[in-house]
Amino acid sequence: MRANFKSYPPCNIYPTAIIGDDVSVGTFSEIGDGVVIGDRTRIGAMSFIPAGVTIGNDCFIGPRVTCTNDMYPPSPSKEDWQATVIQDGAALGAAVTVIPGVTIGKNALIGAGSVVICDIPEGEVWAGNPARVVKRSQ
Amino acid sequence: MRANFKSYPPCNIYPTAIIGDDVSVGTFSEIGDGVVIGDRTRIGAMSFIPAGVTIGNDCFIGPRVTCTNDMYPPSPSKEDWQATVIQDGAALGAAVTVIPGVTIGKNALIGAGSVVICDIPEGEVWAGNPARVVKRSQ
Amino acid sequence: MRANFKSYPPCNIYPTAIIGDDVSVGTFSEIGDGVVIGDRTRIGAMSFIPAGVTIGNDCFIGPRVTCTNDMYPPSPSKEDWQATVIQDGAALGAAVTVIPGVTIGKNALIGAGSVVICDIPEGEVWAGNPARVVKRSQ
Repeated sequence: MRANFKSYPPCNIYPTAIIGDDVSVGTFSEIGDGVVIGDRTRIGAMSFIPAGVTIGNDCFIGPRVTCTNDMYPPSPSKEDWQATVIQDGAALGAAVTVIPGVTIGKNALIGAGSVVICDIPEGEVWAGNPARVVKRSQ
Repeated sequence: MRANFKSYPPCNIYPTAIIGDDVSVGTFSEIGDGVVIGDRTRIGAMSFIPAGVTIGNDCFIGPRVTCTNDMYPPSPSKEDWQATVIQDGAALGAAVTVIPGVTIGKNALIGAGSVVICDIPEGEVWAGNPARVVKRSQ
Repeated sequence: MRANFKSYPPCNIYPTAIIGDDVSVGTFSEIGDGVVIGDRTRIGAMSFIPAGVTIGNDCFIGPRVTCTNDMYPPSPSKEDWQATVIQDGAALGAAVTVIPGVTIGKNALIGAGSVVICDIPEGEVWAGNPARVVKRSQ
């Protein structure tokens, strides 16, 4: 099972979430049904990570990050939900919102308060609503 | 009284809120003094619905939606607060913010992360900060 | 010590926070390590005020305001964090996000849902993502 897992209650962590080693989850966060979180990833306070989200290793999910799964809510069935993938080393700043179905590439950085509505390439910095590229990968 | 009401504690639901049948309210949400919520409406986790908000039937209020009532805070008196109306069937995506005094029309859909600063006509899709029309009603 | 301090549990208020008289903190808020809050300041529900933030007297911090301290998260050391200052009488609307290192001037007003990425002069009204000036000081 998960080693060195730390959470700051109250949190709402579904028992079906699959959480790696050395993960921390801040106060007032929700980690939903079947969410996958890799090793050494830190989830800030008040984050909302629902069913359908997969987060890699060494990610930083800032406080108040909101992920989603239902593009045209409310869908009649969970089969209409879309998966979101946050790859290894990605960092999402505070209060970022991510629409369903996108992939955020390895080591990408998303600025605070951004709304991500498309895939983000590896290593790039994006910010704004909607998020736009601020700095290309080197 | 309300039939089949479900909330996921901890929530802060004022006893003066008027809540219809078959309503659910997610974890870490606040439903304020005198808020009206219609039948079959679902309120996501971490939503903030303060005094002065009226929500119709069959609405979907996504996680982390923030409604407001005080346009130039802090007003000296609650009499300066403005009412917000969310009509039947409207859906507000995750992390939407609504300024005081607007009406969101029937079956309108507001994209995730949007900031609503004006009335939204029936059946339209709006998104952005400030929210702008994305798709007119058919 | 602090006189007439009011908080609405559950809140996560670090015991090292330095809080003035007649302060209130809403439900589901976090006030971090060493945060300074002046007299008569009100902090709304679900606000996130981390280490490194100083808030003056008579401020209004709306619900779901997110302050930050780490510009390129995750920094290897807290010494890389930047301080944020919110001066006397400033009002931050609901769901405002503030990036690290900025100063929000006296009696400034920040519109709901804004993302503040630069210093805000005294008495001005700013809004948007990124926040831009809406009304100059008179």
